[in-house]
Amino acid sequence: MNIGPYTFAQFKEKAAEFHSYPAPGLLIGAYMVEAAKARLPEGTLFEAVVETKKCLPDAVQLLTPCSVGNQWMSIVDLGKYAVALYDKYSGAGFRASLDLEKLRSYPEIAAWFLKIKPKAEQDSDLLLQEIERAGDGICAIAPIQVEFERLRHARMGRIAACPSCGEAYPAGDGAVCRGCQGEAPYLPA
Amino acid sequence: MNIGPYTFAQFKEKAAEFHSYPAPGLLIGAYMVEAAKARLPEGTLFEAVVETKKCLPDAVQLLTPCSVGNQWMSIVDLGKYAVALYDKYSGAGFRASLDLEKLRSYPEIAAWFLKIKPKAEQDSDLLLQEIERAGDGICAIAPIQVEFERLRHARMGRIAACPSCGEAYPAGDGAVCRGCQGEAPYLPA
Repeated sequence: MNIGPYTFAQFKEKAAEFHSYPAPGLLIGAYMVEAAKARLPEGTLFEAVVETKKCLPDAVQLLTPCSVGNQWMSIVDLGKYAVALYDKYSGAGFRASLDLEKLRSYPEIAAWFLKIKPKAEQDSDLLLQEIERAGDGICAIAPIQVEFERLRHARMGRIAACPSCGEAYPAGDGAVCRGCQGEAPYLPA
Repeated sequence: MNIGPYTFAQFKEKAAEFHSYPAPGLLIGAYMVEAAKARLPEGTLFEAVVETKKCLPDAVQLLTPCSVGNQWMSIVDLGKYAVALYDKYSGAGFRASLDLEKLRSYPEIAAWFLKIKPKAEQDSDLLLQEIERAGDGICAIAPIQVEFERLRHARMGRIAACPSCGEAYPAGDGAVCRGCQGEAPYLPA
């Protein structure tokens, strides 16, 4: 099954280029994104929520104008393989998830997704074949209404120079930046 | 100044395509990413940390193999415009930030970055000219050593079907998935 304007083979190449390899989750995610997108009225200005950091965000970034950096895609990490696209003004949209019942017809996808088989025993050619064959046939699509209060981006507010490191930071974060408060992920120099 | 293999004009087009517009932060971020990358020994397998969700993650995604979805880029949102690229095995790398002293020579960049002028009074042509002229000349680059424990991805563990919504979720999250625990950003159906 095609993925939006791409054949499966074309999208696999695009995925490999951006994501470094055509990960199964990214290919499945691509069908999910297209399935949700197809249900939005033509011309809708939409944003996205992904419920996992794994693979799925890259499907959104490859197939929609939404990216992490432009902040039209929010990551709400619930550890779930689901994505919602919604009208940025009304909040109405569609959420695509994987339907465990429908997955029963695709044992290799089920084994991969539910981690039933150890990786070494998975057949990756068969997995890709099943993904292409299944397309969005393994998705559940449901209308949703996002709660904007849970997604709105924190405003930066006033910018100040941190008296400790000298770098710019949101003044509202405290007397010094959160990096200097101990949140930076680096060892002390 | 060129941005890695791209002229400024070429990168602006690439930025517009992926990010929907050539945001100043993305263009500046691109110079920051290239400045950090240039200091890593040739052939280093590296990963990335960005300290903000704004724009900068897209510079990393456009100029390196690291993406949100492949999880080679971590977002540690400290509200700071800084990015670190580091050897994925040793954790040693370089962090690029904006140097407020150096910014004094580029008043339009400073006005934009420090929010000194309201948006309506900013001169976006001049801003882009200053960004191209400054290149990585407004960056501070420092060696860093990441603390892996602060970046490691949570393991999914065993996957179960949520007895409430029927979807797959990390069993360790509780009796029902975190969406059903009230963390989903949607209004009740």
